[in-house]
Amino acid sequence: MSKPLILVTNDDGVMAPGIRALVEVADELGDAVVVAPDKPQSGMGHAITINATLRVNKIGKQHGTNFYSTTGTPVDCVKLAVHEILNREPDLIVSGINHGSNASTNVIYSGTMSAAIEGCLEGYPSIGFSLLNESIDADFEPSKIYAKKIIQEVLKNGLEKGVCLNVNIPNLSSREIEGIKVCRQARAKWSEKFDKRKDPGGKPYYWLTGAFENHDTGEDTDIRALNNNYVSVVPVQYDLTAYKSIKHLEKYDFNVE
Amino acid sequence: MSKPLILVTNDDGVMAPGIRALVEVADELGDAVVVAPDKPQSGMGHAITINATLRVNKIGKQHGTNFYSTTGTPVDCVKLAVHEILNREPDLIVSGINHGSNASTNVIYSGTMSAAIEGCLEGYPSIGFSLLNESIDADFEPSKIYAKKIIQEVLKNGLEKGVCLNVNIPNLSSREIEGIKVCRQARAKWSEKFDKRKDPGGKPYYWLTGAFENHDTGEDTDIRALNNNYVSVVPVQYDLTAYKSIKHLEKYDFNVE
Repeated sequence: MSKPLILVTNDDGVMAPGIRALVEVADELGDAVVVAPDKPQSGMGHAITINATLRVNKIGKQHGTNFYSTTGTPVDCVKLAVHEILNREPDLIVSGINHGSNASTNVIYSGTMSAAIEGCLEGYPSIGFSLLNESIDADFEPSKIYAKKIIQEVLKNGLEKGVCLNVNIPNLSSREIEGIKVCRQARAKWSEKFDKRKDPGGKPYYWLTGAFENHDTGEDTDIRALNNNYVSVVPVQYDLTAYKSIKHLEKYDFNVE
Repeated sequence: MSKPLILVTNDDGVMAPGIRALVEVADELGDAVVVAPDKPQSGMGHAITINATLRVNKIGKQHGTNFYSTTGTPVDCVKLAVHEILNREPDLIVSGINHGSNASTNVIYSGTMSAAIEGCLEGYPSIGFSLLNESIDADFEPSKIYAKKIIQEVLKNGLEKGVCLNVNIPNLSSREIEGIKVCRQARAKWSEKFDKRKDPGGKPYYWLTGAFENHDTGEDTDIRALNNNYVSVVPVQYDLTAYKSIKHLEKYDFNVE
């Protein structure tokens, strides 16, 4: 019997240490193929390339795994992999391991999670992994243990239709991590500030900065789990309909004479 | 009493005819200020600019409305407007009118809707408008009638916390449009194809193409409403948690020895 085919992508680019860690795990559990952006694409959200061309570059085999890079976004990578690069359908799509948190509302801005959501839209079980450490020197060894367990369970049990997983891992040693918790997305948000500067010609420009603020005190949130040293697993859907609001809106006067 | 302050943005860029149509409506109902991308940003999803600088360009007043462009994405425009450009909090954020559909799962790829979702994250009532006509010569007059009605109702009644509106308008005359329907997002998807070509040097490149396929036969979907000549209004939330799947996932063996 052939091993499961696991597509590996990310948003930090094909050279990021985080994707190497994920490839090692995927290679243990199946046949991994990497299709990832050729440059960092953090914060790209669910961007796709529709007004420009795309290139695919075959990097070659590394430790038995085929690596491809593309000039596109993480979502483009999933589309190119599924429709052009892979010679059979993947059994699983994994994205990451992202250098930095994608917990709570970060999921919306995240290229890592958009790749997973795209995989889910295409009909494949998909998981995004993120480690709460943005450093290039982050230690991914504890993450690998938890990524492996979660991938094993998803390969065994599958995922419900229209649902993928957003996995965030606290920046701790494996001894310090308490386990895995299934959670909901915390109602938190970025409180932005722009750092306004002047260029050498005296003209203003801006850097986006800010702090992440959580005022959600629920005990079932991903932020709470991470703060309590747990790996958080949030099931994520691409149906954005606010079903509870449909009744509310039906009271509005939408009659146009 | 001062008139409501309405921030207008889009993803087709500040020069697009669609945004002019929305500004005309916003100006009738309040004080409009435009902060929009300086170039087309279709398909940018919820992208933000975190590894590059941003510029803001004051274009000036046109028919009494202040126009600004930025070098950023639609989401960047909302953040810059709220935190740097507007001198008071907006009463409403509107995005569009997009040249082309953002119904069904298009909401995920849409820069227009990401601007509205960002406005909602920032805590303001927000609406994205799209006309089902991608042409630069599209007739926005019927859209203006429906945009006006919906904006009036939202200014009067507000929107529930964490919810914004995704409004799609069929490409019909105002006599042909049957009215406004509150709907859910249809479970449809893009069936992608890549158009593979060779550059003059013989190297391959790709264009993303494809067809939108709807297999959702529900009577309460946005696609159904549009096909029946109605304007569709879908309440959209940024909480992506698939709540129904939490119980399902708790059966998985997530114990790591």
